[in-house]
Amino acid sequence: MSTLETALSYAQDHKETFLNDLISFLKIPSISTLPEHKKDMEIAAQWVASQLEKLSFDDVAIMPTAKHPVVYGSWMKAGSQAPTLLVYGHYDVQPVDPIDLWKTNPFDPQIRDEDIFARGASDMKGQIVAHLKAMEAILQSSHLPVNIKYMIEGEEEIGSPNLEAFLEQNGDLFQCDFCLNADSGILGADIPSLTYALRGLAYFEIRLQGPSTDMHSGIFGGAVVNPGNILCDLISGLKDDDYKVTLPGFYDDVLPLTDDEREELAKLPQPEDWWLMQSGANALDGEKGYTATERATARPTLDVNGLYSGFIGEGSKTVLPAKAMAKISMRLVPDQRPDQVKQSLETYLAERVPPAISWELEDLSSCTPGIIDRDSDAVKAASRALESVWGKSPLFKREGGSVPVVGFIKDILGVNSLMLGFGLPDDNLHAPNEKLHLPNFFRGIETFIRFMYEIAG
Amino acid sequence: MSTLETALSYAQDHKETFLNDLISFLKIPSISTLPEHKKDMEIAAQWVASQLEKLSFDDVAIMPTAKHPVVYGSWMKAGSQAPTLLVYGHYDVQPVDPIDLWKTNPFDPQIRDEDIFARGASDMKGQIVAHLKAMEAILQSSHLPVNIKYMIEGEEEIGSPNLEAFLEQNGDLFQCDFCLNADSGILGADIPSLTYALRGLAYFEIRLQGPSTDMHSGIFGGAVVNPGNILCDLISGLKDDDYKVTLPGFYDDVLPLTDDEREELAKLPQPEDWWLMQSGANALDGEKGYTATERATARPTLDVNGLYSGFIGEGSKTVLPAKAMAKISMRLVPDQRPDQVKQSLETYLAERVPPAISWELEDLSSCTPGIIDRDSDAVKAASRALESVWGKSPLFKREGGSVPVVGFIKDILGVNSLMLGFGLPDDNLHAPNEKLHLPNFFRGIETFIRFMYEIAG
Repeated sequence: MSTLETALSYAQDHKETFLNDLISFLKIPSISTLPEHKKDMEIAAQWVASQLEKLSFDDVAIMPTAKHPVVYGSWMKAGSQAPTLLVYGHYDVQPVDPIDLWKTNPFDPQIRDEDIFARGASDMKGQIVAHLKAMEAILQSSHLPVNIKYMIEGEEEIGSPNLEAFLEQNGDLFQCDFCLNADSGILGADIPSLTYALRGLAYFEIRLQGPSTDMHSGIFGGAVVNPGNILCDLISGLKDDDYKVTLPGFYDDVLPLTDDEREELAKLPQPEDWWLMQSGANALDGEKGYTATERATARPTLDVNGLYSGFIGEGSKTVLPAKAMAKISMRLVPDQRPDQVKQSLETYLAERVPPAISWELEDLSSCTPGIIDRDSDAVKAASRALESVWGKSPLFKREGGSVPVVGFIKDILGVNSLMLGFGLPDDNLHAPNEKLHLPNFFRGIETFIRFMYEIAG
Repeated sequence: MSTLETALSYAQDHKETFLNDLISFLKIPSISTLPEHKKDMEIAAQWVASQLEKLSFDDVAIMPTAKHPVVYGSWMKAGSQAPTLLVYGHYDVQPVDPIDLWKTNPFDPQIRDEDIFARGASDMKGQIVAHLKAMEAILQSSHLPVNIKYMIEGEEEIGSPNLEAFLEQNGDLFQCDFCLNADSGILGADIPSLTYALRGLAYFEIRLQGPSTDMHSGIFGGAVVNPGNILCDLISGLKDDDYKVTLPGFYDDVLPLTDDEREELAKLPQPEDWWLMQSGANALDGEKGYTATERATARPTLDVNGLYSGFIGEGSKTVLPAKAMAKISMRLVPDQRPDQVKQSLETYLAERVPPAISWELEDLSSCTPGIIDRDSDAVKAASRALESVWGKSPLFKREGGSVPVVGFIKDILGVNSLMLGFGLPDDNLHAPNEKLHLPNFFRGIETFIRFMYEIAG
């Protein structure tokens, strides 16, 4: 058997142990945004590091940042002539609320039919374990034809606030020829695909204050300006009736979709009905003049992520609230820039908030959008690997989500990132009942094995 | 000494025991809107009943309703020629959140300077105890010149949902010549006043649903309509830039303020600065063309009382929420009707909510506004009693709050209600650090004593 065949055979024979390792990782409630899970974050980082140590990586380290650490390790035995691949991932997960909508405990993984249900199963512990197990399958019998570095961070779900500084401080350590970012997915269990563009993000919290304390809405209502009403005015004013964002200059830097690109995106198996079914909504709507696929991947948005004011318990309380808060985020597309969007939003608030109301704008996270060259060696190798496993060539698509590290790595390390992961659109990412489709987990392992041989040439 | 003088002397000598009884009542956390306080509601009702029994009332009873009971008792020894007065009050209180803004436990009453701090101190356990102690001061040495009935309910703070049906079922028991409603206040510790008009209420919860579950705002944002954004559009659309409510016909039945009335309201010691100081806001604003006093008492409003959607914890979560909720209330003025307002709001939602969003409108509570005849015997008697205690004649004012029972009593028992209570505008009603000004508590007792002799003569 060739070394490739030996590795594939090993992967075939170790499905059960691979799955058990995945389960042990999924049991760790590594929610990066909640301070009470700090210890769990450390446990998750240690879990990843111990996996790299088992693979006989040279210099495994849990490297501190201002918040959650980055797990590093390298396997450089392919020699200085072979390419060096940086594998990026994140061991943190989203919060679980609303917890009452989960059918089973998000940190007690349960298999139903061909899916495993747990927070982080698809985003992205399953993708990390798939790559680790591809490494194991190769290294158990032979050497890799490429050098490998791992960088598994713990802050992706909070916008990677410390990763840019971390990369700037440790740029030499992470020098590579290109990056493999597995925080991605394919269009369907039987539809291999590769992502060539990502949206960026500008995520803010707006806080308003009217009266100095909550007041009786009967006694003071009418005399005093209500920050809850004003918050609604402000957010409503950010979009027009055609779902266009009204901030001046918002669309100035948006690269228009070419006719060719629109034709290609129209070939993706994501007709309007697909989006409708995925969402479970009564109907779809959005920015006029674009398909749902275009709106969700190649056009910017402005979404409410959270709203709060006054009394939200059961029943009625006749309160005129002192405060109102909104979390809003804009998904950006090339070449929009988060700093310009923030400036525009600040100007909007300064002009619109009435004198009776105090306001604060907090920048919660941001990410520059990106586009990756479809003619690069890495994309071609991935395309061949996918075709070998699935028996058909992949579709090329844009992704609506944001991956801050792709921008940082391009800016600081000077390399592009290949998005190659195996999540599915109905995996309930960031939502109750997140799952991973297990056949994809195992195909992912095979794809990663083949990819590493393909990239070596 | 006259019987009046004897009663006033008794009240003067028993301030400490009166205060201790008030404290024992304030310790009961009788929050009507929260199911977990059901038992406390029963304890509070029993406390009131035991007070009436100590006063040798004839037929004290705790009468069940569909939710919280009504405390009844009567003292009818003045004879059939004497007038019969119905004393209305409520033993329930508002919730205490945000609890972290209270300086001391809301159910462990604390005296600081001349104020006692506790939930319900001013609204309205202090007013109930003031009347009970006036009764005690009179009855300890002589008979009352009037017949008295008590009706102390437990659902005022949730909009008295069962009181209308209760009154319809027990109309004969509560027959009276007029009602004294102590759920009211005066303009300042040294400014006696009488309220001749009350605003009504139409309080709703609007619930929107977009996607069937929370979704990833990166993957689905733009393709799917966000119920949080739509909620803001809907609420924003209910008022124009001049703070006018836009619902068609909303102002059709509003009795316009006469020039005379506006001149009189302008004499009240509530200049714009007073409202500004009370609110602690940076500035005041509201419906164009009206003073703050007019806006807060004689003009209708539309206020957000609560807003919720998505993720409202610390940090960021990139969620496109499935649901959004608003609690909104409109204060109504004579002759607006809550049922007409509801119909208008339903039409608005039916026309405005986009097809992608499902909506529900729940009627949380409602109350018809009212105006009381300033030339009635009861108002004149109260005016004389206030003048005796304070040494100056009272001002006549309108009140911005709503008292559903005033409407029910007029409709079902056929009598008007006299609003006579001693709360102050800065008592923090429905807000953290509610208080009662103790000198007003004792003056209130004296006023009630004098009033009961005045009304008989």
